Amino acid sequence: MSRVLPHTDRILMGPGPGNPYPEVMEAFSRPVIGHLDPEFIALLDETNERLREVFRTTNPLTFPVSATGSAGMEATIVNTVGPGDTIVIGVNGVFGERMCDVAVRCGAEVVRVDAKWGMALDQEELLAAHPSPKVIALVHAETSTGVRNDVAGIGTGKGDTLLLVDCVTSLGGIPLEVDAWGIDLAYSGTQKCIGVPPGISPVTVSAAAIERFVDRSPSWYLDFAMITAYVTGGEARAYHHTAPISMIYALHAGLGVLLTEGLQNVHARHQACGDQLQSGLVERGFDLFAEEGHRLPELTAVRVPDERLPRGMGEADIRRLLLERYGIEIGGGLGPVAGKVWRIGCMGHTARQRNVTMLLGALDELLV
Amino acid sequence: MSRVLPHTDRILMGPGPGNPYPEVMEAFSRPVIGHLDPEFIALLDETNERLREVFRTTNPLTFPVSATGSAGMEATIVNTVGPGDTIVIGVNGVFGERMCDVAVRCGAEVVRVDAKWGMALDQEELLAAHPSPKVIALVHAETSTGVRNDVAGIGTGKGDTLLLVDCVTSLGGIPLEVDAWGIDLAYSGTQKCIGVPPGISPVTVSAAAIERFVDRSPSWYLDFAMITAYVTGGEARAYHHTAPISMIYALHAGLGVLLTEGLQNVHARHQACGDQLQSGLVERGFDLFAEEGHRLPELTAVRVPDERLPRGMGEADIRRLLLERYGIEIGGGLGPVAGKVWRIGCMGHTARQRNVTMLLGALDELLV
Repeated sequence: MSRVLPHTDRILMGPGPGNPYPEVMEAFSRPVIGHLDPEFIALLDETNERLREVFRTTNPLTFPVSATGSAGMEATIVNTVGPGDTIVIGVNGVFGERMCDVAVRCGAEVVRVDAKWGMALDQEELLAAHPSPKVIALVHAETSTGVRNDVAGIGTGKGDTLLLVDCVTSLGGIPLEVDAWGIDLAYSGTQKCIGVPPGISPVTVSAAAIERFVDRSPSWYLDFAMITAYVTGGEARAYHHTAPISMIYALHAGLGVLLTEGLQNVHARHQACGDQLQSGLVERGFDLFAEEGHRLPELTAVRVPDERLPRGMGEADIRRLLLERYGIEIGGGLGPVAGKVWRIGCMGHTARQRNVTMLLGALDELLV
Repeated sequence: MSRVLPHTDRILMGPGPGNPYPEVMEAFSRPVIGHLDPEFIALLDETNERLREVFRTTNPLTFPVSATGSAGMEATIVNTVGPGDTIVIGVNGVFGERMCDVAVRCGAEVVRVDAKWGMALDQEELLAAHPSPKVIALVHAETSTGVRNDVAGIGTGKGDTLLLVDCVTSLGGIPLEVDAWGIDLAYSGTQKCIGVPPGISPVTVSAAAIERFVDRSPSWYLDFAMITAYVTGGEARAYHHTAPISMIYALHAGLGVLLTEGLQNVHARHQACGDQLQSGLVERGFDLFAEEGHRLPELTAVRVPDERLPRGMGEADIRRLLLERYGIEIGGGLGPVAGKVWRIGCMGHTARQRNVTMLLGALDELLV
């Protein structure tokens, strides 16, 4: 403890966290009160009502899981598939792979539908992969590749099958219609397009999904049947676990920013930043990684321009220089594209034109 | 969203959360940076070093699980017992019961050792309950009853068995010696005697426990083998999940308060408040619930003095009046003692003489 750690600040243009909204930082100063306090319950109820607006759903069971986005993934899966249940999972990046890992640990039969990284999943293939799976699961916005997978067409054709969608990087960034698209389970994170630090995971669950929960979730902590009594219990809000009070304040405030600005306006702001960034990169001769027509505005994967790196430098050196000289964070690649792509986010409060301008300028200064 | 929710503040004298330290609230204003940023890794490392000091351990695998205290319980159990493994669990309150629930979901063979609520567990009984369990587990400070269970004697006699201890309400409140007592796995919460809002769960794991992890944890999110690469990975800190940045800032600051004041001084402050409260209650003719010699200073369970309630009022009315008139939260009973006890906490920043004085004064005004 010899060095006093500085309050370093960054422009967060990696795959998340993005910069939080100023209103969110202010919300952390709200006095901590108890998780059973009527005033806290009122704030939680309002937070969940705001979540319903942003998810575009009327599902009563809509709330933040008390852990980060990956726990939202785990929660939605462990409550719906157990030993012998079949789940079809679309895989075209790290987060589809992660879904398979989680589902296998539940003892589920996993049917994979792969697409090449950088390409979108084929909705028809997902629907045809198994005659009657309990669940079809996919990632709406693949943070590892910058690809948008289409979801709406699956809900129409799925019949009784439950549709489970990872909305970690899509919620608040691009249009998402939980009810209109027939999504039964969706989870998200706070640190992407909601503009809130990481820590909790908004989820929403349809009545059809609730009816088909496994008998007993292998996880006590993520057991939706038990949590429901706290989230939607009316007057008697039974204690399950202590809610993460301050993080819920932050989420409440972040959702307030989105709804005040208007969801469509927030989407347009993300789109404008993504367009500015992607056209700026293409103008400079960079190759975008995701296939055209399926590129996310809020997360752009771009091939590392090896020929433009200064002599003796690797891609990680450029990311380090961006961090050290400019205070800008961008992300490297994960898994098979590690060292081959950069991932550049414009999410939440980061999604401002000035940030794109700054990053493009910094790249011009650093590359040859 | 018609009503603007007020910034209600409370004196938090329930079973947790307690009031956070002012330094902790300030820490929430630290700029959010990425979980792989070298500056964040430095802060996480320093946080974990502080945790080692407070847990009194040299375990390298010491870190905050990215979810609340109950997830710390689940994490330590799911990584150590699987189908066919035997776990002896001491049960004398809600949290011992919860351990059984979690362990059963892992497929473990659970051997219960019960003590009456309000009485401490018998260490000899725990040691004799099974000839060679994989794990003996118990709660150090039972938040549902105010009882301290002794731990030190179990470590001495346990042989190869792993010792797993719930330290949610003990860490920072009463002496705890992870290494000296032979504890292999301990977990805690932040919202009790550490003086930080709820949201993450400090854990520490011995080398012996790491060697005996289950082959694959049923939980991906809580898989210690995978998380280790991020927490203790040296230069290459592999991404597992996005760390809850702001909550880790808060924990870092709370631990800083404890270590600056000095652990012994912090324990003495909790003890002095507990003594003042308990003698004040006894002077007023109240019955303390926990057996003498095993009473926690930081959490006092007291029988509801039915004969002193104003006519027509129940115990919940008194708690409501404390909240509405004085802004003081105290807790009701859980499970079999619901309606029969009050639970009064003096934890973290709440553990100040002035708060005890205020609560006793308020009770004098409300009771007959």
